[in-house]
Amino acid sequence: MAIEAGKGTEGGARRIRLGMVGGGQGAFIGAVHRIAARLDDRYELVAGALSSDAERARASGADLGLAPERSYASFSEMASAEAARDDGIEVVSIVTPNHMHVPAAKAFLEAGIHVICDKPLSVSVAEAEDLVALQAKSRRIFALTHNYTGYPLIRQARAMVEAGELGEIRLVQMEYAQDWLSERAEATGSKQAEWRTDPARSGAGGCIGDIGTHAYNLGAFVSGLKTRELLAELTTFVEGRALDDDVRVLLRYEGGAKGVLWASQVAVGNENALRLQVYGTKGGLEWCQENPNQLWFSRLGQPKQLLTRNGAGSLPAAARMTRVPPGHPEGYLEGFANIYYEVAEAILAARSGGAPDAAVTYPSVADGLAGMRFIEAAVASSRGGSVWTPVG
Amino acid sequence: MAIEAGKGTEGGARRIRLGMVGGGQGAFIGAVHRIAARLDDRYELVAGALSSDAERARASGADLGLAPERSYASFSEMASAEAARDDGIEVVSIVTPNHMHVPAAKAFLEAGIHVICDKPLSVSVAEAEDLVALQAKSRRIFALTHNYTGYPLIRQARAMVEAGELGEIRLVQMEYAQDWLSERAEATGSKQAEWRTDPARSGAGGCIGDIGTHAYNLGAFVSGLKTRELLAELTTFVEGRALDDDVRVLLRYEGGAKGVLWASQVAVGNENALRLQVYGTKGGLEWCQENPNQLWFSRLGQPKQLLTRNGAGSLPAAARMTRVPPGHPEGYLEGFANIYYEVAEAILAARSGGAPDAAVTYPSVADGLAGMRFIEAAVASSRGGSVWTPVG
Amino acid sequence: MAIEAGKGTEGGARRIRLGMVGGGQGAFIGAVHRIAARLDDRYELVAGALSSDAERARASGADLGLAPERSYASFSEMASAEAARDDGIEVVSIVTPNHMHVPAAKAFLEAGIHVICDKPLSVSVAEAEDLVALQAKSRRIFALTHNYTGYPLIRQARAMVEAGELGEIRLVQMEYAQDWLSERAEATGSKQAEWRTDPARSGAGGCIGDIGTHAYNLGAFVSGLKTRELLAELTTFVEGRALDDDVRVLLRYEGGAKGVLWASQVAVGNENALRLQVYGTKGGLEWCQENPNQLWFSRLGQPKQLLTRNGAGSLPAAARMTRVPPGHPEGYLEGFANIYYEVAEAILAARSGGAPDAAVTYPSVADGLAGMRFIEAAVASSRGGSVWTPVG
Amino acid sequence: MAIEAGKGTEGGARRIRLGMVGGGQGAFIGAVHRIAARLDDRYELVAGALSSDAERARASGADLGLAPERSYASFSEMASAEAARDDGIEVVSIVTPNHMHVPAAKAFLEAGIHVICDKPLSVSVAEAEDLVALQAKSRRIFALTHNYTGYPLIRQARAMVEAGELGEIRLVQMEYAQDWLSERAEATGSKQAEWRTDPARSGAGGCIGDIGTHAYNLGAFVSGLKTRELLAELTTFVEGRALDDDVRVLLRYEGGAKGVLWASQVAVGNENALRLQVYGTKGGLEWCQENPNQLWFSRLGQPKQLLTRNGAGSLPAAARMTRVPPGHPEGYLEGFANIYYEVAEAILAARSGGAPDAAVTYPSVADGLAGMRFIEAAVASSRGGSVWTPVG
Repeated sequence: MAIEAGKGTEGGARRIRLGMVGGGQGAFIGAVHRIAARLDDRYELVAGALSSDAERARASGADLGLAPERSYASFSEMASAEAARDDGIEVVSIVTPNHMHVPAAKAFLEAGIHVICDKPLSVSVAEAEDLVALQAKSRRIFALTHNYTGYPLIRQARAMVEAGELGEIRLVQMEYAQDWLSERAEATGSKQAEWRTDPARSGAGGCIGDIGTHAYNLGAFVSGLKTRELLAELTTFVEGRALDDDVRVLLRYEGGAKGVLWASQVAVGNENALRLQVYGTKGGLEWCQENPNQLWFSRLGQPKQLLTRNGAGSLPAAARMTRVPPGHPEGYLEGFANIYYEVAEAILAARSGGAPDAAVTYPSVADGLAGMRFIEAAVASSRGGSVWTPVG
Repeated sequence: MAIEAGKGTEGGARRIRLGMVGGGQGAFIGAVHRIAARLDDRYELVAGALSSDAERARASGADLGLAPERSYASFSEMASAEAARDDGIEVVSIVTPNHMHVPAAKAFLEAGIHVICDKPLSVSVAEAEDLVALQAKSRRIFALTHNYTGYPLIRQARAMVEAGELGEIRLVQMEYAQDWLSERAEATGSKQAEWRTDPARSGAGGCIGDIGTHAYNLGAFVSGLKTRELLAELTTFVEGRALDDDVRVLLRYEGGAKGVLWASQVAVGNENALRLQVYGTKGGLEWCQENPNQLWFSRLGQPKQLLTRNGAGSLPAAARMTRVPPGHPEGYLEGFANIYYEVAEAILAARSGGAPDAAVTYPSVADGLAGMRFIEAAVASSRGGSVWTPVG
Repeated sequence: MAIEAGKGTEGGARRIRLGMVGGGQGAFIGAVHRIAARLDDRYELVAGALSSDAERARASGADLGLAPERSYASFSEMASAEAARDDGIEVVSIVTPNHMHVPAAKAFLEAGIHVICDKPLSVSVAEAEDLVALQAKSRRIFALTHNYTGYPLIRQARAMVEAGELGEIRLVQMEYAQDWLSERAEATGSKQAEWRTDPARSGAGGCIGDIGTHAYNLGAFVSGLKTRELLAELTTFVEGRALDDDVRVLLRYEGGAKGVLWASQVAVGNENALRLQVYGTKGGLEWCQENPNQLWFSRLGQPKQLLTRNGAGSLPAAARMTRVPPGHPEGYLEGFANIYYEVAEAILAARSGGAPDAAVTYPSVADGLAGMRFIEAAVASSRGGSVWTPVG
Repeated sequence: MAIEAGKGTEGGARRIRLGMVGGGQGAFIGAVHRIAARLDDRYELVAGALSSDAERARASGADLGLAPERSYASFSEMASAEAARDDGIEVVSIVTPNHMHVPAAKAFLEAGIHVICDKPLSVSVAEAEDLVALQAKSRRIFALTHNYTGYPLIRQARAMVEAGELGEIRLVQMEYAQDWLSERAEATGSKQAEWRTDPARSGAGGCIGDIGTHAYNLGAFVSGLKTRELLAELTTFVEGRALDDDVRVLLRYEGGAKGVLWASQVAVGNENALRLQVYGTKGGLEWCQENPNQLWFSRLGQPKQLLTRNGAGSLPAAARMTRVPPGHPEGYLEGFANIYYEVAEAILAARSGGAPDAAVTYPSVADGLAGMRFIEAAVASSRGGSVWTPVG
């Protein structure tokens, strides 16, 4: 994925035909997905059901240059129409509020179309389990955009843990602090705030579903650990809000490691401070999303090292995920694009009936189910007065 | 306390006569106390019971230039002998392992001598409560060296919270990470590790008593909040160790604020990373001990500000605690010396029968008791399976 | 340029037809240009003369999915053929080594095609002056990819200076440190090193042309100052190298401000450390490219502020250049894409015979000439023994 | 110098008798010297000529607890009186404005008393050369408080360069930025500003003498390089000021290394930002005084390391200069105290007719002369229009 022409990373006839559900005018994450798809020139957006409002869907499609007949009023219509076309979409991106994820995903998987879906996967564990079963049957690719796992240095961190550089893992500290919901933004016209604080559209978790799952997924992705049980306290600090806006969770992993996860949307002064620390018997790692081009690595008894994206010491698992030399910062969109890059690898392999390179890694429907189990266990633990609760 | 002669901050006949219990050859914290006492020239060390080993006590006294007859073999002998002298010590510093704090403190308070004592206060709540009662009766000054409260920017943070700059406090995040006990140092000759991991000398808390109490005290000092209950998990990661080396605690404060405290001595790559974050409805503060000359302050919806020690925006409560201009870093010893400075203010006032300036602040015996309640509640909560436990 | 569909930032029939000269297999900067063009979906690459080697040109075109007849063996052939097509390219990106910039640019301007050209503009001032004249006559758009001016916080800095937030500017400190030429990479197979250290392809400046001009341009862009004279010392530290690898320049600006510029490619430990500091009578700014999402701003006598990309205090000139919320980092590719975005604005306006919005800003052929004057003056000053030398 | 009793670092009969010239009420640096002398308990202040104003001298002496008969009205009276006493001072600290340094130093050296003197050494090279000759004859110890060389990590940096860890040195970048003279503070009552901007008391250099010499000395101390010639531009930005407030200097070292030095007192937002970068063929070092507990070290082609004071990888030359464990920050006063510590080592050795340990290092009268040559060469170069000028 180095910046070189001729590796099949860009363009031409090999582009994958992509559709999108959600992401119409006024949306945020839809445009992020489209940039991510475009960055490496491996996708072409050709169809969409861009809004549940038919008029907005049509106008949004026109904005994006979709052929009018491929700008659909509903995802179900889109799934069947596209499945029937010779040049129908190969993969769909689902970028709606949470409650639509599973219904839409089912429609496309059943139509034989691969799925890229925003997180969290669903609004309940039960719904997620159904989808896991359906996906297995469908043999279609399913990727969940836990986009932070796409950062090259997160790949580096995971590879270092796997290689035993940290020894046996003891501690995983996850922190995700924001401040944009410090006041009641959902009451003053923020569309982003509205659906994220609405149980009907978000499910039982507010902050925990929106950002807590990202932190949880990241901790699991890097440490490779499975959670045995957790204990949580969810709080709603802003009066009148229907869902939690601050979450603190103690975690016990299989094998004896311990974790703390703190996520908050009322921590004034924090924009998007997702931080991860992992400590083992021999070494430690520290990373913060706001400057994702740096990873601290410490070996017990030695000076701390500052690893940089694509810099000295880059492992292959990280180096394949970067486009520009060290010192030329990459950011959120590149990390997001890496998920699309990996999915493209898998789709291209599937086109010819094969499997992608073993290095290809993207969050799966199983990760989505794990996230839902985390949410449900945390909500249950908190309602029960912060008691230890098994995690699926 | 600006660097100016003529403010009574230095020297001469006004120096306070100081004694020391513990702190002989091979000790660490005793020398820190002596530097702290010396820095502003307000104390003169004239007596000591520097070791429980009589020979080492004598030799240590000689090293420090004590008159031979004032280098005592025991603290009790020292208390009575010094109380009987016209030029006897006015205040004693107790810098022994934890289990000796209260017995020594009692002896000196009963002899009418002020006390400066290392933390944690005692090895049990009961013992601490006794001391609180005795101290009240004695009307002597008692200061506990929770030295991190001496940092000027911690004073700044506290003053900003008091002034309402953060609005109503919602979150207090405390973190204290070290790595020096990642392996079993107590088994390989580290004196510092030996007593800190020995229940007989440290009490029921290992990491929680050694550094957890510092973090807890700091959170309370800055936020001004009282803890209602806590829930804790104490872990011993290093095999064969008798006390905890990692602690995670959830806190519920009176009034509804929430806290998380994580302290660890097995977090590889952390030297002495004591960090505090406080978030309210209107603002947030972030501080890290390893660079104590900086304090981040955020007002909701405004750019983050980097406040510096003695720099623009310094409040009087902070400015009075610094010696050199901004950009000239102060450190651990200066922060520690500030506790001695404050105690000197109180002693000088007491000499003339008065009270010190209202701005004078130092951790008290009550703070020591609060720390012990924190330790005991955490140990009990953890043993009970991490249940909510009232804090005294 | 917020992430919203429907602003004409993405797609469809509005896409601008783009060609490329250089950037074939094995090149670095060509792929960067293509990503930059693609990011906002405003361009479509349809033609190329991707290598001076005909076979590589053809193969590179195929990789990128170009129609075979639009993958040309030379830029001159391409210019005439594309100019003759109804669907010919509207703009060409020139991403060759320096000595080819002007010949290629002339061919396309003369064919009536807009030009985006890599920096430095040319290999001599004379050549650059010719091009300036030709471009003026041609009335075609000409943009030079001094990409670092595309960073949102650099736009913010420039706008703050323009608005007088810093008062009268006194000091401009420019620093650009790398280490990738610390050893003789050009002798051990690095294509990037080969042409950059070859006077025939790079012109008279090595480090000064490759990165010194970036720093110089950035200083001028933000400060708005014109250079009156300079004094330089160019050094070649690596034995056998034909061009300078380290440059230090003193600058005198019109109006009395002073500058220092240091650029080096042998500063071990620096990846791509482009730093800018600007100080005026009332305020100061500091920025580093390696974390471009932060800008330090100080008002005299007030605490330092950390401005963030798209965060609190963003001026319109900066906010229009970002795609994602604060805390979601943008990087090098997004900054580069902003130049393409601005050029697209200008081309779309030109299509309909108008001028782009007044906010549209991109480095021009005049900036390219200024850069060449800087290089020539510095080389002359250094050869003359570091004497003050007027800058065009 | 670890914190342990019993190493002769503290107290008793071994304390060195110290006098002070200057540093009376209202002074800044005098109190710094006194704290530095006190920190390790190796000195006792017993005499002073604390002000050129007799009344202020007397009052200042009383404040500090000096015996009235040892609080002198002039340094010459003090030198002869103290030399005549059996218990006379062994060493004097000279902390006056610059023009008094040499007259006072001469008086004490001639009286057989060791000297610690503030920087810069004198107001002219000629005066400095005289003093060098006198000191050599006197065989007394002479230390110049270029205090920044006392920082442990500066000792580490020097030792690493000496050990060849950086290979052959190519580049030395020195930067010292402040903002406290951004406006005309000398006209609005700042005593500190008054004498520093007065040629009669400061000599021919303003900013260059006050802080430029610190940066220059630090570069030489760490790199071990000798300057062959320099080229300078001194500027006075603030109208009405008599001396320079901004300095930029190009340096050519013997052996071919190059340097840049920028010092400014009008760089808004900088408190005391003394920074040093040293780059060689194999490695690089970066350090900033505002957080002196960190030193960046890079080996070519390897990840950057963050060395910490007293942390992993500390060399003996650095470890002997620290008092507290890593992570417990030391600051400006400790670094300053290290100069006093080293001088005490030398004086104690001299008491018994010997030489101190080879590791003892403190800035000497020769360093003071080198600093004066730097100032005079820079002033001459600047007046000559920035021409290369040999440095003594």
